[in-house]
Amino acid sequence: MQNAAQNNTDNDTGKNTEKNPSAPLEQLAALLEDEMKAVNALILQHMQSGIPVIPELAGHLIAAGGKRVRPLLAVAAADMLGYRGEKHHKLAASVEFIHTATLLHDDVVDDSDRRRGKASAHTVFGNEAAVLVGDFLFSRAFQLMVEIGSLDILRVLADASATISEGEVLQLTTKNNIAAGEENYMKVIRAKTAELFAAACEAGGMAAGGTAEQCAALRCYGENLGIAFQMIDDLLDYRDADAALGKNTGDDFREGKMTLPLLLALAEADAEEKAFWQRTCGDLKQQDGDFETACAIMARHGIFEKGLEKAAAYGRAAQQAIAPFAEETRIYPLLHALIDFVLARRH
Amino acid sequence: MQNAAQNNTDNDTGKNTEKNPSAPLEQLAALLEDEMKAVNALILQHMQSGIPVIPELAGHLIAAGGKRVRPLLAVAAADMLGYRGEKHHKLAASVEFIHTATLLHDDVVDDSDRRRGKASAHTVFGNEAAVLVGDFLFSRAFQLMVEIGSLDILRVLADASATISEGEVLQLTTKNNIAAGEENYMKVIRAKTAELFAAACEAGGMAAGGTAEQCAALRCYGENLGIAFQMIDDLLDYRDADAALGKNTGDDFREGKMTLPLLLALAEADAEEKAFWQRTCGDLKQQDGDFETACAIMARHGIFEKGLEKAAAYGRAAQQAIAPFAEETRIYPLLHALIDFVLARRH
Repeated sequence: MQNAAQNNTDNDTGKNTEKNPSAPLEQLAALLEDEMKAVNALILQHMQSGIPVIPELAGHLIAAGGKRVRPLLAVAAADMLGYRGEKHHKLAASVEFIHTATLLHDDVVDDSDRRRGKASAHTVFGNEAAVLVGDFLFSRAFQLMVEIGSLDILRVLADASATISEGEVLQLTTKNNIAAGEENYMKVIRAKTAELFAAACEAGGMAAGGTAEQCAALRCYGENLGIAFQMIDDLLDYRDADAALGKNTGDDFREGKMTLPLLLALAEADAEEKAFWQRTCGDLKQQDGDFETACAIMARHGIFEKGLEKAAAYGRAAQQAIAPFAEETRIYPLLHALIDFVLARRH
Repeated sequence: MQNAAQNNTDNDTGKNTEKNPSAPLEQLAALLEDEMKAVNALILQHMQSGIPVIPELAGHLIAAGGKRVRPLLAVAAADMLGYRGEKHHKLAASVEFIHTATLLHDDVVDDSDRRRGKASAHTVFGNEAAVLVGDFLFSRAFQLMVEIGSLDILRVLADASATISEGEVLQLTTKNNIAAGEENYMKVIRAKTAELFAAACEAGGMAAGGTAEQCAALRCYGENLGIAFQMIDDLLDYRDADAALGKNTGDDFREGKMTLPLLLALAEADAEEKAFWQRTCGDLKQQDGDFETACAIMARHGIFEKGLEKAAAYGRAAQQAIAPFAEETRIYPLLHALIDFVLARRH
């Protein structure tokens, strides 16, 4: 695997990506358009229920679209192994349901003041409905997997689900703990984000009847892509209003989540800055202008660049992991380029 | 099946139960003590996690004990078919995890004032943790089922989980709707309660390698037992403080849930009573003394007796359903007597 990976540095795909970093994800979606149409049809079909509020609430998140990155990965992984059946459609829909259930449950908060101005599902429909519809989607995910009929795929996704909730709990219990270090952060993002990326890719390989080695390589790709993806996401939560182009920023800051930029800033902090982070993110005693100050401190220490460097290392590991598939010329180049796309995100 | 059922009316078991109505559940637990020890060990083992708050919070509900009715049913069903393996232990633990996850998610409320004085998990650990640990237990349930290795059992439990959340959502969206009738109520309790009883019994039969007919009979028993169980539970929520022996009452009233006693009372209500129910349960404009008034109205109309009659009909259906197993002398008489126990509950 490592030899193949080395052949692959500085390849053409990488250069193309620099010119148009959004291309690979869109190209992947275009290339797999028929597959993804089938997946979307399954998603819409299986989110139906005799209880009208269920598709309404689920649709609030699902029908809105989103990039469908996780189901796209599952489909791409199977396709790259030459699979032309339909099992991976159900798998991909299932993965999207697990992701959506997680989002719904993520949005349930104890203190509704904490997510100001954000019309998340729980504020529109209430905490209880958001929880219960999340449970419904989660159950639907398992119903779809039962239909696939593979205990191995079921195991991968059941394990992933348990790990995701562990990661979410760990994040919750280490929130506002300025002493929680990078090891804790890595545990959290491996579990809450990378695990489902990994499971989607691995199970995609399984649906295609891939060998154990192929499935492990796909898993490794997904995991490292997921880590890089989450790191960039966390870094971008501290971009200032000008760079945000109307997107939400500062959510992690307002909740005092111990994410990568904060950890990197803490490592560079003098006494005054440390006191600032303790007050704002440790004690959650925030006042107007604090987020702008936080962004200014981040910029002064070059935190984005430092974080990007860390994320890029995981991105390279992801690219190495799929090197054994380099001879496949349809999907492989796009999965390779997708890493550069993720690392090039600025919004 | 029906002939066998007729042979079975007025049997000895029924008479014994009248003398000591709590006996059958305890006897079942005693008879299956070794099995249930194994189930409890699995429960304790699988609720562990590297994240300490998970077993803490899960233990808040699980380790506290409870009657373990649902896992007991799964084990009893398998045992009645002569099964002596270990598959049903995992199934039973899985069923208890699904039940506990449901309880945790049930306790998440939008308005924390609504459950005064009740230290439910969400008030001790917060809404978010309760939701996430529920998700964890739900995932664990599926991990355990994957270990059993039966797609049929997985299908039954995945279907049950989806149905349960649909029932919970239906209950939520018809709360405070005085016009929601008995058909709606039956849909709710079939889904949120009877479905898991049914699935536990059916899957117990499947774990034992029962025939399709046997599994269907077990499912029918569980479903009707579940309906009777929930009806009695709902009736008892309107018993007054004297009869409650320190247990919580009035929760359904305070939330304005459209449960059996309220529906029966509405059917008998004159204009003044109708206005009372509309104000208290429809508009949720409650004041001190309202619950006592509600109980007095219920007593005046003999609502408990009317409700008991309805529950008893489902109880008889449950007893008929297992009549084909009447020749089994160890478990069958206790499952039969369990119905009378459920119907005889007064606290």
